[in-house]
Amino acid sequence: MAAPDIPVNIDEKLAMLVELWSPRIVGEINDLHVKVVRVEGEFVWHTHDDTDEFFLVRRGDLTIEMRGRDPVSVGPGDFFVVPRGVEHRPVASSACELVLIEPKGVVNTGDATDLDLTAGETWI
Amino acid sequence: MAAPDIPVNIDEKLAMLVELWSPRIVGEINDLHVKVVRVEGEFVWHTHDDTDEFFLVRRGDLTIEMRGRDPVSVGPGDFFVVPRGVEHRPVASSACELVLIEPKGVVNTGDATDLDLTAGETWI
Repeated sequence: MAAPDIPVNIDEKLAMLVELWSPRIVGEINDLHVKVVRVEGEFVWHTHDDTDEFFLVRRGDLTIEMRGRDPVSVGPGDFFVVPRGVEHRPVASSACELVLIEPKGVVNTGDATDLDLTAGETWI
Repeated sequence: MAAPDIPVNIDEKLAMLVELWSPRIVGEINDLHVKVVRVEGEFVWHTHDDTDEFFLVRRGDLTIEMRGRDPVSVGPGDFFVVPRGVEHRPVASSACELVLIEPKGVVNTGDATDLDLTAGETWI
């Protein structure tokens, strides 16, 4: 699927999601993908060695735990960038809707090996 | 100024803006800057030959006119990516607040020469 050449409404895309923790691509900026994802519960600890990862919270509250430092709490209208190489685990105690931005080809589970949680590159 | 290592609230940053059409940097993702800007009226026609430009509307309505194709209307919660090489002009009939994402070093006026509108690279 090609990048859309019309405006994309983030909430409409979020409403189309079926599975938790399964990011879907909604746009592209150069070599990056813009994705939406709905999460709840705890993800796996993982690291992206070669890229930062941008999290923008649209609805709900996200805690990002990071190895070796205090967790951060990211609320609606907040964004946080996990620096490359920092092992992290997103956690949401209730449903939370996010926009992610990261390079094309980045796997959501990074270096982790829990294949049940690994999402493919799918547009929505 | 270094990139923040805490969550950034977009609305708080937008509230700190003083001038129209003067993007301020609020974060970074790899070689990109995340910026906020408040706009009203017509910007200059310009082109970024080497990069796409991401516009996310937080408040208000933005029209993006593009040479050779119909304009698009971008409302709250919508994003639109102007492809590289496409001459464009953002227009807002009333106050509009945006998040922009584009590579570090990109000048807001692109190839245009209206230096009064050209913003430096300033964090807020």
